[in-house]
Amino acid sequence: MATKAVKMVKNAAGRLVPTVVNDVPFAPFSGVGAKEPKRVMAAPPVRSCTEFPADGNKLVKDLKTALQNAGLRNGMTISTHHHLRNGDALTNMLFDTIHAMGITGIRWYPSASFPCHEYLIKYLQDGTIHHIEGSMNGPLGRFASEGKMKGTGVLRSHGGRYRAIQDGEVHIDIAVIAAPTADPFGNANGVTGRSACGPLGFALGDSEYADSVIVVTDNLVPFPCVPWHIQGNNVDHVVAVDSLGDPSKIVSGKTQVTKSPDRILIAQYIAQFVEEAGIMQNGFSFQAGAGGINLAFLLQLKERMKKNGVKARFIRGGSTQYLTEMLQEGLTDYILDGQAFDMEGVRSLRDNPNHVSTSPFTSYSHHSKGNFASMLDVVVLGATEVDLQFNANVVTHSDGLLLHGIGGWQDCLAGKCVILAVPSFRDRVPIIVDRVTTLCGPGELIDVVVTERGIAINPRRKDLIRKLSGSALPIRTIAEIQKEVEGICGGKPQRPELSVSEVVAVVQWVDGTIIDSIYKVK
Amino acid sequence: MATKAVKMVKNAAGRLVPTVVNDVPFAPFSGVGAKEPKRVMAAPPVRSCTEFPADGNKLVKDLKTALQNAGLRNGMTISTHHHLRNGDALTNMLFDTIHAMGITGIRWYPSASFPCHEYLIKYLQDGTIHHIEGSMNGPLGRFASEGKMKGTGVLRSHGGRYRAIQDGEVHIDIAVIAAPTADPFGNANGVTGRSACGPLGFALGDSEYADSVIVVTDNLVPFPCVPWHIQGNNVDHVVAVDSLGDPSKIVSGKTQVTKSPDRILIAQYIAQFVEEAGIMQNGFSFQAGAGGINLAFLLQLKERMKKNGVKARFIRGGSTQYLTEMLQEGLTDYILDGQAFDMEGVRSLRDNPNHVSTSPFTSYSHHSKGNFASMLDVVVLGATEVDLQFNANVVTHSDGLLLHGIGGWQDCLAGKCVILAVPSFRDRVPIIVDRVTTLCGPGELIDVVVTERGIAINPRRKDLIRKLSGSALPIRTIAEIQKEVEGICGGKPQRPELSVSEVVAVVQWVDGTIIDSIYKVK
Repeated sequence: MATKAVKMVKNAAGRLVPTVVNDVPFAPFSGVGAKEPKRVMAAPPVRSCTEFPADGNKLVKDLKTALQNAGLRNGMTISTHHHLRNGDALTNMLFDTIHAMGITGIRWYPSASFPCHEYLIKYLQDGTIHHIEGSMNGPLGRFASEGKMKGTGVLRSHGGRYRAIQDGEVHIDIAVIAAPTADPFGNANGVTGRSACGPLGFALGDSEYADSVIVVTDNLVPFPCVPWHIQGNNVDHVVAVDSLGDPSKIVSGKTQVTKSPDRILIAQYIAQFVEEAGIMQNGFSFQAGAGGINLAFLLQLKERMKKNGVKARFIRGGSTQYLTEMLQEGLTDYILDGQAFDMEGVRSLRDNPNHVSTSPFTSYSHHSKGNFASMLDVVVLGATEVDLQFNANVVTHSDGLLLHGIGGWQDCLAGKCVILAVPSFRDRVPIIVDRVTTLCGPGELIDVVVTERGIAINPRRKDLIRKLSGSALPIRTIAEIQKEVEGICGGKPQRPELSVSEVVAVVQWVDGTIIDSIYKVK
Repeated sequence: MATKAVKMVKNAAGRLVPTVVNDVPFAPFSGVGAKEPKRVMAAPPVRSCTEFPADGNKLVKDLKTALQNAGLRNGMTISTHHHLRNGDALTNMLFDTIHAMGITGIRWYPSASFPCHEYLIKYLQDGTIHHIEGSMNGPLGRFASEGKMKGTGVLRSHGGRYRAIQDGEVHIDIAVIAAPTADPFGNANGVTGRSACGPLGFALGDSEYADSVIVVTDNLVPFPCVPWHIQGNNVDHVVAVDSLGDPSKIVSGKTQVTKSPDRILIAQYIAQFVEEAGIMQNGFSFQAGAGGINLAFLLQLKERMKKNGVKARFIRGGSTQYLTEMLQEGLTDYILDGQAFDMEGVRSLRDNPNHVSTSPFTSYSHHSKGNFASMLDVVVLGATEVDLQFNANVVTHSDGLLLHGIGGWQDCLAGKCVILAVPSFRDRVPIIVDRVTTLCGPGELIDVVVTERGIAINPRRKDLIRKLSGSALPIRTIAEIQKEVEGICGGKPQRPELSVSEVVAVVQWVDGTIIDSIYKVK
């Protein structure tokens, strides 16, 4: 089922990658910041008001009717967004409808998929869905890793996904946008309604470039739906449904800080590092995510900021109660937010004008006149593996299984100081490896690796090494940390058993080139 | 100087129009809602973050440097917006700079020009500016009418201007955006700073599609400038200047209601008409503009709404203190606003989340999946002339002189009930004529003409005629009103002396076809 018998070439990172994926040619990765060919953006068809009801009412009776009106056919590309996360009921309902209409061979282009979408495996098996281009978290990733998907997965970062739409690399036939609030014209937002999820930015490119845009809501309000994060002027059809999903899984009521002593130690190290490196200054900016370590780091950093009287200019979300508290307490001027992870994040985005919704275009797209990611003074990210050259993996585990999406991870590597926060081992498998199973981020963009056993600074960052030279922090080489951990774990991770002739998915770099291949696990 | 010896054809409105304007072919008007050819939108070149500074700082030292970086050459198209209105100093400064650089033959594409731009006549004379495509209010219109402009003017509505950019009909080489507040990345808004003007929507299309976008500000703030009505991701260069213009002329401190008894009577008639026609209902919507009659109408309507306990769902701006008071008093849920006419409008837009900035894309573009204009229950507009078939003119006077822009006037004709508020004569020249000097709006879209001498309902609107059948309002035929006014004024308006072989400008319909020609005045 996986890509076979295609030409594989060695790219600039020394990885073998196919030159054709799902019959579409792709260029191999040719280095960070490489010169790119001249091209123009996708040019959507011009539509006219004469095709739409003058009273602005685009409501149709159900999803099936909307899909019929959109001209659904075999082999089309259908996109969805993941702001409803693991509470999303709409995507499963969508493919039930597509299946019932007898349609097959769909390319599904989600901004991410979640465990709740395990339900869709039957449609991958029966051919309703040909393949997925988008992150495959958990069960769908495992399904692909086992070589069971009919086509080849294409993994893009959030910015890369927007770029691919904008550049015309991915033409979306029909975008289906879950909207916690919408009006009959198609204006939509995610900040109100019982399925409120925060921003809707991951659906922005879909709404701008898809041939047909269907907004589905469980909270229909009279025109105008304010704010309109999705513009009705881009929308073809509106469908009202009883429920978009399970609100308790769309956002957590409350996000959780790690309780693991090792992980708290990592968080402490990072906060101290950020202070000692002179990054924590008035007007600085950072992004830390919503994982357990990241939240612990945030609390540590907050204390240091208060103690030193330091105020940030902006913090990038995903937002949580911990970020919104910093905004309320005057520790930052702004939160710039791509997704809300808890109810406080949603509430703050709705009510606080200094908590601002962003999109993959503003924040992450590499094919833009600059973006927000490269302005960040420091970003704290995770990884599944990192090698001695600081190259990192974020999608597969050392057993070769594809279990995570890229998210904004690759895009964030553009930040001024990129810190990977990683426990030195997981389930007795060392995280520091000789060669990452899958290359997602080139080591030249990763500045610091922080484990509970020490902090490794990339030798390229002589400035950081100099600044931390007198520090009490356990600054070590990455090789030292690796050796110690291998001693604890009883050696290096077992090499996965991969079928190297069978590529089940490829990883794109932010510029659209292919940086690595993911192989079938035997 | 004007267009000569080009092929003229009679369009669907019976008007002679050129098929080629400034060497570009244009289709003649073929009727309201006519079938349109299939086409695709303009496809701007893909740009990359690698071309822009990673720290987001796009500041250059002055406008000249920005223009040089943008590759300014002879014959380019340069766009500006008119949110600074008659207080705009930037556009004159821009053309001083272009002139000093020795550049000629510029096509100037403003969203509107004002009397303060009379200064630019010298650059129209010396060839720095080849011609203007955009409204020419006052002196520049007179200059064009006298046949002195080197090229032919093209007049578009606000929606038509956005459409022309989006459709690739007008390719902007360099957009120069006056920004009352901006950051070094190019994010910009008009709601703060000493040159605050309200929305910046007229520059939206320019920022999205121009090859190079230059943001010029007199209030530079650190990233991020929030809100960002113009997105820095679309901006190439940022220039800081001492002053964008004269704040007292950018917005009026206070907008003025008419004191003329005749005009107050017109306002009273319209308010009564709107109530008796059953339009003034809970959840209704309207747009009235900021002219003296319009404001008087607003006050009249407000009293009727209060008396009847009626609340609007939304009111379309241009905003004034009279609109913002209605929002504050709970007489409308929302103001949807394309431009602010006084300081209260600016303040409310900045501070009240239910006062929302709109753009010509959301509000007016005919090449969109619907727009806001057609959803309005009633719009009150002006006109310079109207004929017995309700055809109307808004750009020339009966002497043939081009003195006004179209603004959103044509776009607003999509509303459900379109009312023209016109004094029956001006300077003893009757407004109701046998044939309008210039056709801007087809009579089939104009429902009611209200003068101080009576109200004429378009015979096509049998529903309105029926609803008003028992009214005490002076409902009359348009011919009756014409006859009475001609009696007062001593006959019909004198026909202008026009050189019909010399077209100085054309008027586009919202779909891009040419609806009429404007001739040189002898």
